[in-house]
Amino acid sequence: MNYSAFTPAEIRALIRAGKLDAPTTGYCDGYAQGNLVVLPKALAWDFLLFCQRNPKACPLLEVADAGERSFFQFAPGSDIAQDIPRYRIYRNGELTEETTDVVRYFEERSDLVSFLIGCSFSFESALLDANIPVRQIEECVNVPMYNTNIPCTPAGVFSGNMVVSMRPIPHAQVPAAVAITAGMPRVHGAPVQIGTPEAIGITDLAHPDYGDAVTLRPGETPVFWPCGVTPQAVVMHSKPEFCITHAPGYMFVTDVKNTLLKF
Amino acid sequence: MNYSAFTPAEIRALIRAGKLDAPTTGYCDGYAQGNLVVLPKALAWDFLLFCQRNPKACPLLEVADAGERSFFQFAPGSDIAQDIPRYRIYRNGELTEETTDVVRYFEERSDLVSFLIGCSFSFESALLDANIPVRQIEECVNVPMYNTNIPCTPAGVFSGNMVVSMRPIPHAQVPAAVAITAGMPRVHGAPVQIGTPEAIGITDLAHPDYGDAVTLRPGETPVFWPCGVTPQAVVMHSKPEFCITHAPGYMFVTDVKNTLLKF
Repeated sequence: MNYSAFTPAEIRALIRAGKLDAPTTGYCDGYAQGNLVVLPKALAWDFLLFCQRNPKACPLLEVADAGERSFFQFAPGSDIAQDIPRYRIYRNGELTEETTDVVRYFEERSDLVSFLIGCSFSFESALLDANIPVRQIEECVNVPMYNTNIPCTPAGVFSGNMVVSMRPIPHAQVPAAVAITAGMPRVHGAPVQIGTPEAIGITDLAHPDYGDAVTLRPGETPVFWPCGVTPQAVVMHSKPEFCITHAPGYMFVTDVKNTLLKF
Repeated sequence: MNYSAFTPAEIRALIRAGKLDAPTTGYCDGYAQGNLVVLPKALAWDFLLFCQRNPKACPLLEVADAGERSFFQFAPGSDIAQDIPRYRIYRNGELTEETTDVVRYFEERSDLVSFLIGCSFSFESALLDANIPVRQIEECVNVPMYNTNIPCTPAGVFSGNMVVSMRPIPHAQVPAAVAITAGMPRVHGAPVQIGTPEAIGITDLAHPDYGDAVTLRPGETPVFWPCGVTPQAVVMHSKPEFCITHAPGYMFVTDVKNTLLKF
């Protein structure tokens, strides 16, 4: 089944009805998808501040009020607790459960604050439109991601280094790839490193810290973008008493077109 | 005395020493200046959320930790409580004092959170570089500002409509003015209205709600940008028990060049 022509509301309804349980890549052509982080209100100030101070790694799209289950700006009518195909529950920083519905947690406690964070799917769609290859899509694997030595600006209990994703770009297309993504600051923006991985503490491209290795061909430059895994890694490192995230690749599909994130 | 060639650190030192008490327009050519809002921690979550939800009117540059008196990212070594030439103190939404130093308030209570918000000075400098006129600078008056019917997205105790500033732009230069400012989302970004003030509830350009009227010449289009007075108006409307702001025109001078705000 090809879901690229479905509207985001249709996709969210199918997910909510339990009729879709697959990674959301390729759903709803042209619409932005987002990362979800849900934290208790007691940690929300520190996390909001962390995102504000590190907008390239943690580009906030929307923050819901405590206890609120809808993203009013990016997806009116959505249900944060049911509209993602697969969620992960963490307690004290340990993954304790993977589930398709987190309604009970929002019912058990009224202090949960949901953060929607921009995702590289949006800029990859802009790269593909410009005939710039996206290797991990060609090779049907997860994007390779690496820990770096670039410190994030800390905020309260949250601190850590930036995680980056890597895409091999043909030499001649590197300037276009930089310019196109620089124009989309709400979904990570420009790369942080071009062609010199050791400058940011990456020594072995063949063994990413997260995701899968991809082929770097002759005539290509490895280009590194700030990655949405950064906020998740930073949150887990602080061992919060409770946290919900989406499962990797199972994203929240919004009603906002990628093109509007350029604005 | 012309302060355009001074460094931001030099200017802040002069202000801190009580040797400068004038509006900061024209200080430190090329460096960004910012609006200051200081609120008790109890209100800071709602205000941070309000800014996150209304980034065009309230483009946050930096938020300091509670009690912290320096903006580490935009001005390392700065003293928020002394480096602005003139501050305003509000109690329950009423202006109670204008002063050159607010150290005692930061000493009296440890819960004050300082917000630095982007300012239109930055994009005006980019307009002037492109030979686009900025009328209120030519006429040596304050920019005209108007209340609109555009609702901001509320957050907690904060709600209200957007305030906009108006600049008359020669017809042929309107597209360039839009494109240039759209490229600077951290300092208000693109206009919200071009040429049809009544569409956003403005009926009388000759009588702005804040600032001064400027001449609209034949062959010019009135262009309206989201204005940094919005967060101040919204904060005062909620009558916070305590609030510090800069006095209009007396801004915080940062170490970050305007050009870097495009990135």
